[in-house]
Amino acid sequence: MARLLLSGGHVVNSTGSRKADVLVADGSIVAVGDLASLSIVDAEVVDCAGKLLLPGGVDVHTHLDSPMMGTTTSDDFESGTKAAACGGTTTLVDFAMQTPGKSLVSSLAAHHAKATGKAVIDYSFHMCVTDLYDGATDEFAEVIQSGVSSFKIFMAYRGTLMLNDGDMFEVLRKSSALGGQVCVHAENGDVIDRLAADLVAAGKTGPSSHEIARPPSTEVEAVERAIRIARMADSPLYFVHLSTEGAVEAVAEARSKEWAIAGETCTHYLTLDRSLYDAPGFEPAKVVLTPPLRTVEHREALWRGLRAGTLGVVSSDHCPFCLEEKRRLGEKDFRDVPNGGPGVEHRMIVMYAEGVRKGRLTLEKFVDLTAAAPARQFGMAPRKGSIETGADGDIVVLDPDGTTVISAATQNQRMDYTPYEGWELPGSIDAVYSRGELVAKAGTYVGSQGRGQFLRRATA
Amino acid sequence: MARLLLSGGHVVNSTGSRKADVLVADGSIVAVGDLASLSIVDAEVVDCAGKLLLPGGVDVHTHLDSPMMGTTTSDDFESGTKAAACGGTTTLVDFAMQTPGKSLVSSLAAHHAKATGKAVIDYSFHMCVTDLYDGATDEFAEVIQSGVSSFKIFMAYRGTLMLNDGDMFEVLRKSSALGGQVCVHAENGDVIDRLAADLVAAGKTGPSSHEIARPPSTEVEAVERAIRIARMADSPLYFVHLSTEGAVEAVAEARSKEWAIAGETCTHYLTLDRSLYDAPGFEPAKVVLTPPLRTVEHREALWRGLRAGTLGVVSSDHCPFCLEEKRRLGEKDFRDVPNGGPGVEHRMIVMYAEGVRKGRLTLEKFVDLTAAAPARQFGMAPRKGSIETGADGDIVVLDPDGTTVISAATQNQRMDYTPYEGWELPGSIDAVYSRGELVAKAGTYVGSQGRGQFLRRATA
Amino acid sequence: MARLLLSGGHVVNSTGSRKADVLVADGSIVAVGDLASLSIVDAEVVDCAGKLLLPGGVDVHTHLDSPMMGTTTSDDFESGTKAAACGGTTTLVDFAMQTPGKSLVSSLAAHHAKATGKAVIDYSFHMCVTDLYDGATDEFAEVIQSGVSSFKIFMAYRGTLMLNDGDMFEVLRKSSALGGQVCVHAENGDVIDRLAADLVAAGKTGPSSHEIARPPSTEVEAVERAIRIARMADSPLYFVHLSTEGAVEAVAEARSKEWAIAGETCTHYLTLDRSLYDAPGFEPAKVVLTPPLRTVEHREALWRGLRAGTLGVVSSDHCPFCLEEKRRLGEKDFRDVPNGGPGVEHRMIVMYAEGVRKGRLTLEKFVDLTAAAPARQFGMAPRKGSIETGADGDIVVLDPDGTTVISAATQNQRMDYTPYEGWELPGSIDAVYSRGELVAKAGTYVGSQGRGQFLRRATA
Amino acid sequence: MARLLLSGGHVVNSTGSRKADVLVADGSIVAVGDLASLSIVDAEVVDCAGKLLLPGGVDVHTHLDSPMMGTTTSDDFESGTKAAACGGTTTLVDFAMQTPGKSLVSSLAAHHAKATGKAVIDYSFHMCVTDLYDGATDEFAEVIQSGVSSFKIFMAYRGTLMLNDGDMFEVLRKSSALGGQVCVHAENGDVIDRLAADLVAAGKTGPSSHEIARPPSTEVEAVERAIRIARMADSPLYFVHLSTEGAVEAVAEARSKEWAIAGETCTHYLTLDRSLYDAPGFEPAKVVLTPPLRTVEHREALWRGLRAGTLGVVSSDHCPFCLEEKRRLGEKDFRDVPNGGPGVEHRMIVMYAEGVRKGRLTLEKFVDLTAAAPARQFGMAPRKGSIETGADGDIVVLDPDGTTVISAATQNQRMDYTPYEGWELPGSIDAVYSRGELVAKAGTYVGSQGRGQFLRRATA
Repeated sequence: MARLLLSGGHVVNSTGSRKADVLVADGSIVAVGDLASLSIVDAEVVDCAGKLLLPGGVDVHTHLDSPMMGTTTSDDFESGTKAAACGGTTTLVDFAMQTPGKSLVSSLAAHHAKATGKAVIDYSFHMCVTDLYDGATDEFAEVIQSGVSSFKIFMAYRGTLMLNDGDMFEVLRKSSALGGQVCVHAENGDVIDRLAADLVAAGKTGPSSHEIARPPSTEVEAVERAIRIARMADSPLYFVHLSTEGAVEAVAEARSKEWAIAGETCTHYLTLDRSLYDAPGFEPAKVVLTPPLRTVEHREALWRGLRAGTLGVVSSDHCPFCLEEKRRLGEKDFRDVPNGGPGVEHRMIVMYAEGVRKGRLTLEKFVDLTAAAPARQFGMAPRKGSIETGADGDIVVLDPDGTTVISAATQNQRMDYTPYEGWELPGSIDAVYSRGELVAKAGTYVGSQGRGQFLRRATA
Repeated sequence: MARLLLSGGHVVNSTGSRKADVLVADGSIVAVGDLASLSIVDAEVVDCAGKLLLPGGVDVHTHLDSPMMGTTTSDDFESGTKAAACGGTTTLVDFAMQTPGKSLVSSLAAHHAKATGKAVIDYSFHMCVTDLYDGATDEFAEVIQSGVSSFKIFMAYRGTLMLNDGDMFEVLRKSSALGGQVCVHAENGDVIDRLAADLVAAGKTGPSSHEIARPPSTEVEAVERAIRIARMADSPLYFVHLSTEGAVEAVAEARSKEWAIAGETCTHYLTLDRSLYDAPGFEPAKVVLTPPLRTVEHREALWRGLRAGTLGVVSSDHCPFCLEEKRRLGEKDFRDVPNGGPGVEHRMIVMYAEGVRKGRLTLEKFVDLTAAAPARQFGMAPRKGSIETGADGDIVVLDPDGTTVISAATQNQRMDYTPYEGWELPGSIDAVYSRGELVAKAGTYVGSQGRGQFLRRATA
Repeated sequence: MARLLLSGGHVVNSTGSRKADVLVADGSIVAVGDLASLSIVDAEVVDCAGKLLLPGGVDVHTHLDSPMMGTTTSDDFESGTKAAACGGTTTLVDFAMQTPGKSLVSSLAAHHAKATGKAVIDYSFHMCVTDLYDGATDEFAEVIQSGVSSFKIFMAYRGTLMLNDGDMFEVLRKSSALGGQVCVHAENGDVIDRLAADLVAAGKTGPSSHEIARPPSTEVEAVERAIRIARMADSPLYFVHLSTEGAVEAVAEARSKEWAIAGETCTHYLTLDRSLYDAPGFEPAKVVLTPPLRTVEHREALWRGLRAGTLGVVSSDHCPFCLEEKRRLGEKDFRDVPNGGPGVEHRMIVMYAEGVRKGRLTLEKFVDLTAAAPARQFGMAPRKGSIETGADGDIVVLDPDGTTVISAATQNQRMDYTPYEGWELPGSIDAVYSRGELVAKAGTYVGSQGRGQFLRRATA
Repeated sequence: MARLLLSGGHVVNSTGSRKADVLVADGSIVAVGDLASLSIVDAEVVDCAGKLLLPGGVDVHTHLDSPMMGTTTSDDFESGTKAAACGGTTTLVDFAMQTPGKSLVSSLAAHHAKATGKAVIDYSFHMCVTDLYDGATDEFAEVIQSGVSSFKIFMAYRGTLMLNDGDMFEVLRKSSALGGQVCVHAENGDVIDRLAADLVAAGKTGPSSHEIARPPSTEVEAVERAIRIARMADSPLYFVHLSTEGAVEAVAEARSKEWAIAGETCTHYLTLDRSLYDAPGFEPAKVVLTPPLRTVEHREALWRGLRAGTLGVVSSDHCPFCLEEKRRLGEKDFRDVPNGGPGVEHRMIVMYAEGVRKGRLTLEKFVDLTAAAPARQFGMAPRKGSIETGADGDIVVLDPDGTTVISAATQNQRMDYTPYEGWELPGSIDAVYSRGELVAKAGTYVGSQGRGQFLRRATA
């Protein structure tokens, strides 16, 4: 491959930004600086004047080709990673579900099979533990040594995904002893199940009941409990998809004590709000996400949490189910609507527009939340998340003067809707490079097929 | 000036470290990367294999040539900045005291005169406000526009330096309206004066009484009060020299609410402890610092505060008075011992050894605390604090395999003691570059005279 | 004096209420129970069927015949105590101001002279310390031994009443060492003075500016600071007239740590709110009280604080200045409006109506807040504050079926207004006994002249 | 029954104490006062000069004749209530366990049958809910209307007693809607089970492992969670047997917000500590209580919690199993040692000696914690818990100059040990009256048989 010289752009890293040229060779960044003064030969020169050069996005929360609630997410590794690439994300960490009745190791192998040869960007997995069978923790070492250095557990969905507190404690202990991390879905599922059953009993079976059944306190309680149990287990903890002010406060307090507690929120909690549940008919099913969207007060608390450093990562929680499928399964009972929505394709531009352009985040903070921090958090730095010598040549060329219009009709995600339908945002993602290869141009995938590599992630 | 190529070193920035070459031209860094693959001609090549390349240290708390407590600090801008350079610090922010009876502007001019032509590294000032005469705040704009974008006030030392709460409120309001920052010395001076008077009345006039008169709660109360008052004034606040666990907790709580509260601690609070006050005779006068050294429990809380991000800066609070001078003034009454000690020369190596080598800090965090963060905090980034294209060529070459022995006999500070006497530390600072010029080599100043430049600092 | 038998009433103490007869002899209660079954002879029997029998009110915060802000409060000990008696209050603790330039002991004697032979109910004093001259604390023992076991200090009003933090610390230390208590007026006076000066400079000289100059945070900060300083002094502390939610939270937190921190609020903070400052012209001067009235949110937090036990006492802060006098002094500058309002006469019935009848307080809690708790807090139990054998025969006969209409025209307070003008409240105070003597009947004083006794109060 | 006149004693109520005579007729107190001045005829006069007259103790946490962990508690209602009477306790609230597979109503009837005709003092029940079968909450109204106005649930002991969070939420909602209360055993049972299994797996099967398996954080977490869930359910909550500093802090914080959260601790947590687990062999089984004894730091925090009002009740948690029985069941595996110990007989004298005589509690606070507060908390006031007109004639005559020696050999509890063996305490309980009848004299039961009455308790 010829060398690539991105010339004259404004390079943004999480710690600073500057005008600089970037030279990529053999898939890696080899120099950053005022390279015009040097004699660079044998390089394809791309003029990036007036453009932002960002580290490729790192999305650590996606569900591709994943069985859930009686169906399967609508994007597989090919469609999902192409959509990601078009949206400026060059690395994914997907959830490998435990197959019921199967061991962790065999479940992981099955998930590998879904990705190999289909993914077009680099990827890794979190290993979901939903059934702590005897001997399950004995396999943790093998899982971690294979490069899957994090686990995921659920405090909700009794009967299918939920672990009880003792199991959670055990997973935390065993994982942390091996340098692994644990991602927690924090909601008090048992209380939610009671509230949901009441709503159904009262005839409130429509999708808007989803929100009522999951009040903010069900998240806050679970967050506080998980922190306590992580302390008992002397283990770090990573909260996925936090949505409430109380959760932010609990994490902030824990972090101020130097406890290793980290928190993530998602694009939609930052940019949408609960008013969408007031839509008529089955329309609210589009945002039957878990946890649900919250009020504007919670949303603003999440932005504050990002700026204060309490929340360190913004992911998509891309968990796509077509509206048709949601209706087929859950029209009669909101509890059967598959929980989730799309997002991997639009995370970067929505965060840029709503965060940077609306003055809520600096450019550097935006890069940190969407690329640098998730890469550090999950053992992918320094290869991913920064435009620095030695890093992979994963680079997004963003035109601050461009415009992006979001629409289901034009998206690459295999979905029949998007919650951002019709949004017109400042900025456009002109080009995306993965390991030095141009993979997306103006929202169209232009790279080779199945080129994504499994990324072995380091332990803490 | 010929170009300079630092070749093959391990470049450490606050966000990551990697093997890379650094090219400096005209005082600025122009490229970072694997530059051997390029044809760099006309450059002096320095082999840095096996060495760490760190951003030059930024020390934002020094008192050079400064009148205080009836005497003057023992280092002037020449001796003080040479000591700094030899110790790996290439930027200082010194305190410009308000001359009694004089305006802020004229006081600042007087402090400029002390530095110009004497300083050998780049420097700026914080403007101390110790007498809020009518019209004082009207001069804030002129001070800030001249590049002095921060003020310093005292909550202790009634009668000489202390402002009352109303004055503090006024300074905060007026400064923040102009984008300025306010640094606060937080101790409840009135309570301290009562405690000190009691000790003297009880015949406890020796220097070890200094500690007794300033219990931790006198700092914690003042910190909490200043935070409250900053909130009333809708103003950011920067605490200098925090020393207690309670202060860390108060700042952590404030920051978790996204209030713009920042905190600094100093080398000595992190590495020494109150047992030094148990030394016999006048010996404790060496550590008559304000606030005093604390117990080991407080010290450890400060390290935790650094790691948790609550405290963001480590400064020296270099405020040197020879032991002879301390004795001359304060032998009969500890209240007359000038408060302060040396530190600008040894901050970098002590923090490296006690922080990085003892496993308390990562290399990146060490660089952040001693260079990147203070530069960001006080409007000197991106010129200072990082080894990135476009930054000044302020670079420290540190040999991790070297050894440093600290001694008053060999130090460059104009002092007859050092609290680190005899410490033998891993690591040595082999070379120091300021704007591309080699200014120190193995602890000896080798640069030109009076070469330091006043640094105009940006507002928030 | 013949024995007095109050027969068939509903006796309410802070811990319970029951139908019972009460026998009083020689000024003291000698039996409580079903006394009809016993042969009580030689007693005047008063039928109290259907009536509540309450312990006589104890008001620990009044300013009678008191020099303040260039004038003197409008009630002297005769008019003030008669008003109190008519309103169901049988014990006062008034503030003995320190006469400028005079010693504490002589100031106290002067205040005694104002009360002796004029007061018609029992009374004591808090000793105000407004100038901590050399030797002032040496007189504390004499003051306390004379039965004045509490001091009062101010954190506001620099130049007239305010002590600095060191003086406050000293008063706390010296008082607590002798078993005395310290009452604190907690507001950050210096910040307030700045805010007030700004308002005047901006031409906002009317009485409604009083509120703007004293935002809630100025109280909260002072409360937190005073708690800190009390801890340094290892001393208990009693906050007078708390008005804000933040103050309640700070006291609650301190109390949960078993610190000896107590808090009082006043009738008006519980029943009025800041909307009164929106009245036109000079009308807001009626509620130029310190601290000012707050929003409804603060008011509700105070009620919660009472119920949760955080705040233990409700006083009147009776500090009466006629509106004419307020106008004369402060029409041109709100800072010169004497701070204070009337309240001693209506505290009991307003608290009964707004507290008990509106369901915010139980009858028992009402009695605790207005009689039992202040008596315990300030060393007057078991003589005052309960209807128990051995206690003084201070008893209020309240008719729950009666009605009270408040009006300046009919009040006994020597005032030209009342903030409760026109309020029609459920319940009426039919009769009031002080040491077994009927002193008030249906709002008219019927007792003998100058019968009040100075009450020597115990130390902690 | 002739009238009873207790003459000349020092009557102690929770709010004050005074010398007074007490007249009892028809089982109730009819007068308190200086009754010698009245002509009381036809009364048995008991000279109580020099004695304390206390309200009969109210113990709201006992397990009599109760099936648990494969055996039954060793005291039935006859032996248990006689022991209580001899120790100065005249009212019990016992736990009515749910019989596996039976309804609440029938379980309650079965517990009634155990008490009727056997109990010698007045008693009531809390209804334990250990299996929330369909329709269980429909019986709540009947249970409450029968006078059993409180429920008990467990957050530990999965498989036998534990409810999950959803069930707890449901019990709280349904109970509070009816004015009922819920008592919670707060420990994270699932985490404990994991820790216990590890200990057994590691061969640590002896009784001292009981403590290790239940660290303080397992209580604190459960307390915080239960508070959260009670808030979701908008329900009050009462914590039984709190043992840790963290639990006290959590309850204090909740109470400071005026949430209806109450807390109880037990005699043994206040007077014993974890060092007893260091005894050799099977000896620690004597204190295999749940939660376990804690360190002295926790113990002192509990005393502070009592004084600060955070904890309002001291119960015995009398749950007696003979050491022989503990050995028979649990010698091989500490998890099978029945959890519990004796205490109903010695609660009053131990609290008096350790609390009042050691200066930790006032006499009034002691009476509040052991009699007045539990009576108020559980709907038994004003009949129980005070010496006031109208209350039951339940009175303890305590001689402050007497001495009590505790020994298994002489106790009335049907137990082969007591954790207080050999303790020699100041004070002795000379006589105990229940509804005016002398039931115990110098530690011997002298009352009639089976005289205890079921006490219908009021709702909130």
